[in-house]
Amino acid sequence: MGLIVQKYGGSSVADAEGMKRVANRIVSAKRDGNQVVVVVSAMGDTTDELIELAKQITPIPSGRELDMLLTAGERISMALLAMAITNLGHEARSFTGSQAGVITTSAHGRARIIDVTPGRIQEALKEGAIAIVAGFQGISQDTKDVTTLGRGGSDTTAVALAAALDADVCEIYTDVDGVFSADPRVVPNARKLKTVTYDEMLELAASGAKVLHLRCVEYARRYDLPIHVRSSFTTNEGTWVVKDHPVGHSLGKGTEMEQAIISGIAHDKSEAKITIVGVPDRTGVAARIFQAIADADINIDMIVQNVSAAATGLTDISFTLPKAEGPDATSILQKLQGEVGFASIQYDDQIGKLSLVGAGMRSHPGVTATFFGALSNAGVNIEMISTSEIRISIICRESDIERGVRAAHTAFELDTDQNEAVIYAGTGL
Amino acid sequence: MGLIVQKYGGSSVADAEGMKRVANRIVSAKRDGNQVVVVVSAMGDTTDELIELAKQITPIPSGRELDMLLTAGERISMALLAMAITNLGHEARSFTGSQAGVITTSAHGRARIIDVTPGRIQEALKEGAIAIVAGFQGISQDTKDVTTLGRGGSDTTAVALAAALDADVCEIYTDVDGVFSADPRVVPNARKLKTVTYDEMLELAASGAKVLHLRCVEYARRYDLPIHVRSSFTTNEGTWVVKDHPVGHSLGKGTEMEQAIISGIAHDKSEAKITIVGVPDRTGVAARIFQAIADADINIDMIVQNVSAAATGLTDISFTLPKAEGPDATSILQKLQGEVGFASIQYDDQIGKLSLVGAGMRSHPGVTATFFGALSNAGVNIEMISTSEIRISIICRESDIERGVRAAHTAFELDTDQNEAVIYAGTGL
Repeated sequence: MGLIVQKYGGSSVADAEGMKRVANRIVSAKRDGNQVVVVVSAMGDTTDELIELAKQITPIPSGRELDMLLTAGERISMALLAMAITNLGHEARSFTGSQAGVITTSAHGRARIIDVTPGRIQEALKEGAIAIVAGFQGISQDTKDVTTLGRGGSDTTAVALAAALDADVCEIYTDVDGVFSADPRVVPNARKLKTVTYDEMLELAASGAKVLHLRCVEYARRYDLPIHVRSSFTTNEGTWVVKDHPVGHSLGKGTEMEQAIISGIAHDKSEAKITIVGVPDRTGVAARIFQAIADADINIDMIVQNVSAAATGLTDISFTLPKAEGPDATSILQKLQGEVGFASIQYDDQIGKLSLVGAGMRSHPGVTATFFGALSNAGVNIEMISTSEIRISIICRESDIERGVRAAHTAFELDTDQNEAVIYAGTGL
Repeated sequence: MGLIVQKYGGSSVADAEGMKRVANRIVSAKRDGNQVVVVVSAMGDTTDELIELAKQITPIPSGRELDMLLTAGERISMALLAMAITNLGHEARSFTGSQAGVITTSAHGRARIIDVTPGRIQEALKEGAIAIVAGFQGISQDTKDVTTLGRGGSDTTAVALAAALDADVCEIYTDVDGVFSADPRVVPNARKLKTVTYDEMLELAASGAKVLHLRCVEYARRYDLPIHVRSSFTTNEGTWVVKDHPVGHSLGKGTEMEQAIISGIAHDKSEAKITIVGVPDRTGVAARIFQAIADADINIDMIVQNVSAAATGLTDISFTLPKAEGPDATSILQKLQGEVGFASIQYDDQIGKLSLVGAGMRSHPGVTATFFGALSNAGVNIEMISTSEIRISIICRESDIERGVRAAHTAFELDTDQNEAVIYAGTGL
């Protein structure tokens, strides 16, 4: 008996059949004696269809009106889901983001949650009803306008609501069984992780794992709220995203007392690389460059700068960013060329990023050597390297990515066909 | 320079082209120096499509959730319309019923407006913006739930908002040029009325004229708010619905000092007739019957009861009601048969109603005789009669309706091919 927040994505409620299947699942959680709050996305492709409608009207819709338009999507799905539950003999009430007390900034299209005041949800729960809440949306604190949260918005709604309601768990339903040690489409014998820490999940999400969005994991970590990522098509246990791996945690059998080192391998083909060649090695130059990029709201990922050649006093700065933002960034940098005085800009969108993530990494030296050795044996050339305490990322050719992922997965003994868990003792990081 | 409330129906904004056409029209009113508030319905068949979706989920959707679902329709159209206006270089802001301050009862699907507190609309107007408001919807005073106003809801929103804003006029845009002396599909030479009084319009609407809904006319009459019914496809003057015909009003040329008698002829094929045969002529019996009908929320229209035959002490009671409600009403009456003790129920859905409406009728006797004479000459048999001060309605065979409408239209000299206006002097009502 507890309070569960469940989140269902658009593919789970794409049609009436999906709605009914999800409704059964929700009712079953309620029958188990839980209080249930459900966060739901717009049905299937509804959001894309609404964006298409807006494009027929104007090339640059105002943010306020686009948010007003798009929030119709969750309104439709939540009302239908409430009907489907009522049809099963349980009371359900749907609430918009505003009604659920999701208070946000007024940045339309990418609003951030400021506060959640779920009085009406608590009232509905107290009266025995199941509460259905529109994901992805809120109301701005200043202007009382309808806002949307942008990418990963519905997951974030679910976690924020779960935190505000002091829920026991936030269940994120998706079309895969949980979080895997690598993308199962690339590594067919990837294993499903039983648990993953917030820190590991953040690194995995930032490194290209799409199952959970960065924002929602950040939110869960801040409130220490357990997330259970699982499939809406099976009743299998999924992956728990928690503060720490449980004592005796292991990835396999027989090593209950050992701590896992590597949780998984993520990859990302959505980035491009920009190299600024011949940058004068002066104080403030890098700051000037990245301020200009930041002012244009462009998210950059990895940054690498080598020591400058003593003879020339010049250095090269490389960074990666989403491919979609490449043209903008390039044009911003070109405008800076006169002021900063660098030699040239190189743009490369044929790169891939491969990341090794694991909390155990910090206490187990040698991980890097094994990683790089595996890549080398697979013929993958490393172009850039970036590390955090629990992650090593490399940039290589986009065409080498899948070969690299499989090689690393095998090197760290993550493949499911082996019964021993990972006990790694290397030769120094 | 004034404050105009404009209302556009779903057929006017059925697609992107329609949106743009309507946006141009709105901007033109704004350019003329007016403050403009626009009430908009859901696009084309959106509402029907949403109802269809709900039916796929459950045969009996809850009222609260159905309202939540259906209000997505106006949300989409108002956001798109605001975008289309912004695209023309004018500021537009969309508002839900709740944001516009449309406070209603909590009767989902047929909520009534209790109050309108349009503070946000006034603020938008003050700041020079065009306000776009979702028709058909509001928020319940007690439960703060989203409600819909039922049939004619968007027209009612427009008039209610116009009254609350003390607007100069409420323009109702439709796909016809105004209110006609008869349905132009039945009477090709029906004339467009320049003005029609609230009372006449109420009788016309109640008698089957579909151009304006009863509720919205009632509301306009209460607040003495002029309605201008006009086409969204032309810039022609339409019909003004006002308190009194202007001095010198006439339907045609040359009779400026005369008052019109008959404004128009309405007909309605959507009703059925129920006759309860052999009802004991006792006090309270009719009350018992119609209370049972009212308890089931069935709207009845005409009621006729003849004096009872002295020999038997039995009478027949006939009434008309929407065909859709016929089965329910019949089954309710069957349950009453034992208690009330009538002989039988007759159900007839092959009837039509034909109504003659005109404020001048009360001061001009002989209208009835001319009306009945015209029907008789056209071979139309009268089955029931009901009158008000400014209306005479008859029930006849459904198949006789169109012939009857044309005959009456000609008898009262309403046809446009004649240049003289109606000056009728009959031989006594």
